[in-house]
Amino acid sequence: MNCILGIDGGGSKTICIIMDDAAKILGRGEAGASNYQSMGIEAAQSQIQSAIHQATITALNHINNINIIAICLGLAGVSRPEDMEVIKAIVSKLQNSKDILPITWELQPSHIVICHDALIALMGGVGDAVGIVVAAGTGSIVFGRNHQRETKRVGGWGYILGDEGSGYKIAVAGMQAALKAYDGRGKPTSLVENLQQHLGLERMENLIEVIYRKGWGVKEIAALAPIVDQAASEGDKIANSIIDEAIKELVIATSTVMDHIFDSNQVVEIVSTGSIWLGKCGLRERFVNSIIDQYPLVNVIYPRYEPAYGAGLLALKALSGNW
Amino acid sequence: MNCILGIDGGGSKTICIIMDDAAKILGRGEAGASNYQSMGIEAAQSQIQSAIHQATITALNHINNINIIAICLGLAGVSRPEDMEVIKAIVSKLQNSKDILPITWELQPSHIVICHDALIALMGGVGDAVGIVVAAGTGSIVFGRNHQRETKRVGGWGYILGDEGSGYKIAVAGMQAALKAYDGRGKPTSLVENLQQHLGLERMENLIEVIYRKGWGVKEIAALAPIVDQAASEGDKIANSIIDEAIKELVIATSTVMDHIFDSNQVVEIVSTGSIWLGKCGLRERFVNSIIDQYPLVNVIYPRYEPAYGAGLLALKALSGNW
Repeated sequence: MNCILGIDGGGSKTICIIMDDAAKILGRGEAGASNYQSMGIEAAQSQIQSAIHQATITALNHINNINIIAICLGLAGVSRPEDMEVIKAIVSKLQNSKDILPITWELQPSHIVICHDALIALMGGVGDAVGIVVAAGTGSIVFGRNHQRETKRVGGWGYILGDEGSGYKIAVAGMQAALKAYDGRGKPTSLVENLQQHLGLERMENLIEVIYRKGWGVKEIAALAPIVDQAASEGDKIANSIIDEAIKELVIATSTVMDHIFDSNQVVEIVSTGSIWLGKCGLRERFVNSIIDQYPLVNVIYPRYEPAYGAGLLALKALSGNW
Repeated sequence: MNCILGIDGGGSKTICIIMDDAAKILGRGEAGASNYQSMGIEAAQSQIQSAIHQATITALNHINNINIIAICLGLAGVSRPEDMEVIKAIVSKLQNSKDILPITWELQPSHIVICHDALIALMGGVGDAVGIVVAAGTGSIVFGRNHQRETKRVGGWGYILGDEGSGYKIAVAGMQAALKAYDGRGKPTSLVENLQQHLGLERMENLIEVIYRKGWGVKEIAALAPIVDQAASEGDKIANSIIDEAIKELVIATSTVMDHIFDSNQVVEIVSTGSIWLGKCGLRERFVNSIIDQYPLVNVIYPRYEPAYGAGLLALKALSGNW
């Protein structure tokens, strides 16, 4: 049976969706991270292979054999020509790898789509490759594509150079504000006590140990964003100003994409993805109000499908020559 | 001959001054970094030992033998009781280490001073342990001490949690502003071209490789601050707003220390140390104007002596029971 693979490869896990040529899901598999830039090509390939394996096993509960005729891989950090070559080599190895399962590969080069993760998030979130995705989790990026197939990306420069409005930035701003309150530079905020309590710190000085000496990375720090969200939802002014700043950055990034590739009076779907939108302090509502103020006809939606399904839809488009 | 050691141990080098009991310098030695938290205790100890060795060798050109009766170590990142214990252990190992040079140790516990680097920078900078030091290089910290021996520290929370007004923060703000200009969010700035040129980037996207994939650390990033300074001195508005923000942070930190331990109408010496003050764009002048606006009687000075000499002066104070 002719099948299509959609793969969402990120910094924490890899998801594979297998679908038929009518976009019906036949199976789904998950594996570990597949960011080859941080973990190496072989490790990334093995995770992708594992996700595909899982997906095909579930599919083979319903069908007798699998003939893969299109594939789309949406991968974090993949945008440069050099990256494309690396991923192409991985795909060709996938095709040649022996499998005891009844799987065959019949991939024409034009039916292999390799793209960055924002595009499959847009495709999955909207259900079509037109609109804007505002992704804000550990990091942040805003990406849009219009009917003329023009694209515009804003942000996504990572935790040092950008990621404005992300969980990482909110968490760092929260800690900075708490330390400023603590050492007398800033206004009092409940963030001081909340951070100490959450992290079990005897003194605020011990935050240094947690952040610099315990091998914490971007994800661990970003995971503190809910403390700022919680404080904001309880009315803490400093926490709310941090959330306001995050919203402002997400609005600027979104309107930059909007102004570049859409008319301001166009009906455009904007899909919000990522953990930041799930907070209690009304961040999403405030974002939506601010965006609709500027662009009355846009529609901010929650994702309709997951990015891996979006990747499958993109592969289908490639198959129909519609990409 | 009775001698005193002053040691300035930092993240990039260790400096040892050996002086007589009239504060006259007899020798000076340099070695590598001695930040035990990042490099380990043994490596730090060996660098401190090497700096002492160099200093004593130069001193022995003038005198026949050395009897060390007081020592002060001012070390970056040392402030917690646990740190003190580690350094005390290092000092006792130093005393017991065999040396072919004619050196003896006669250290009473009260003549061993262990402190953070801001205190020796104040002591060296002012020539006395009263005043405020505004240190802004790769990182930043403001530290003050008054005649009543009360101290106040503001900032110094490191590159993630703080270091407002530092070279690292100025450099990061410069790159963020350049990327915002580049992706359409921000106003145009010459920082885009200047960064590309300086780093030899074909496209601005390649900045990601430089910052995340080349193993760059805080120091390498902070070393880009002069690009922002240069652009500001040439009139670039965005670069100037970054410099203004840095000045604002340094002024807030300084006035916080001032308000905590001094009267606003007191004559206080404020010593500026670190690379940030050496720029071309008038950062120091703007800082001085802003501070004198608030505190007409303060006097912003350049360092009179280096921190290692300040450490020696502190050891002398301990010796005279005046600490």
